[in-house]
Amino acid sequence: MDKRDAALMGVAIEEARRSMEEGGIPIGAALASDGRLVAAGHNERIQRGDPIAHGEIACLRNAGRMASYSGTTLYTTLSPCEMCSGAVLLFRIPRLVVGERRTYPGDVGFLRSRGVEVVVLDDEECASMMLRFQREHPREWSEDIGGR
Amino acid sequence: MDKRDAALMGVAIEEARRSMEEGGIPIGAALASDGRLVAAGHNERIQRGDPIAHGEIACLRNAGRMASYSGTTLYTTLSPCEMCSGAVLLFRIPRLVVGERRTYPGDVGFLRSRGVEVVVLDDEECASMMLRFQREHPREWSEDIGGR
Repeated sequence: MDKRDAALMGVAIEEARRSMEEGGIPIGAALASDGRLVAAGHNERIQRGDPIAHGEIACLRNAGRMASYSGTTLYTTLSPCEMCSGAVLLFRIPRLVVGERRTYPGDVGFLRSRGVEVVVLDDEECASMMLRFQREHPREWSEDIGGR
Repeated sequence: MDKRDAALMGVAIEEARRSMEEGGIPIGAALASDGRLVAAGHNERIQRGDPIAHGEIACLRNAGRMASYSGTTLYTTLSPCEMCSGAVLLFRIPRLVVGERRTYPGDVGFLRSRGVEVVVLDDEECASMMLRFQREHPREWSEDIGGR
């Protein structure tokens, strides 16, 4: 793996760990522009009672207003849902690095078909945090992905 | 038009007017469940510097955590972007009422193809608020839809 990608995914993983420590869903994200960190964030459904604060959405909110997302890469510990995939397309984020998609596949094929470069790392720590949360909190997990 | 739909779209339009009065982008939304108002919200890009606070997203955030969106209808003054369309699919919101899509078409065909019932009203007030904003604030409008 590219060293910059590893370091920036490390930021997203640290966000996921922080969410887990707060009792929240362990999903984190980071946004970088030309390899430099812009913002990070994590899922806040449980912490703030905020259903739209998926990791990617919280990260994009924390980044604030941007005139362009050209040259950006979004790092997310878990494959994105429809809403977060839509945010990638809306803001024309050209590149997405996904920690793992074993515990939630998302639809990376859809993003690729729309021109997004998607890299899937299959990271063990991302997957083990999610597997534990899904096992211990099945109701909250189901709620976070629309009752599936 | 159905009287309940008219009243609930009225709530979304009132949110759009409020955003306009605050100097923000005049897009509002309302969520109803079995015909009763659950929550409302409006675009807050300018007011809060929040790029993900589209009207629909702000409304869903204001609704708080919900175990199910079965029986809900989302009302939005403007046709939804990719992110907001993705939120509709993620949460399996079965019905969407759109104020107008003259000033931003969105992709209601995609939502219909995924099983969402979409009603488009072509409301004059929704369109005139947007046309005025787009004309007077082209940069902010472009920013809100990913630099298009």
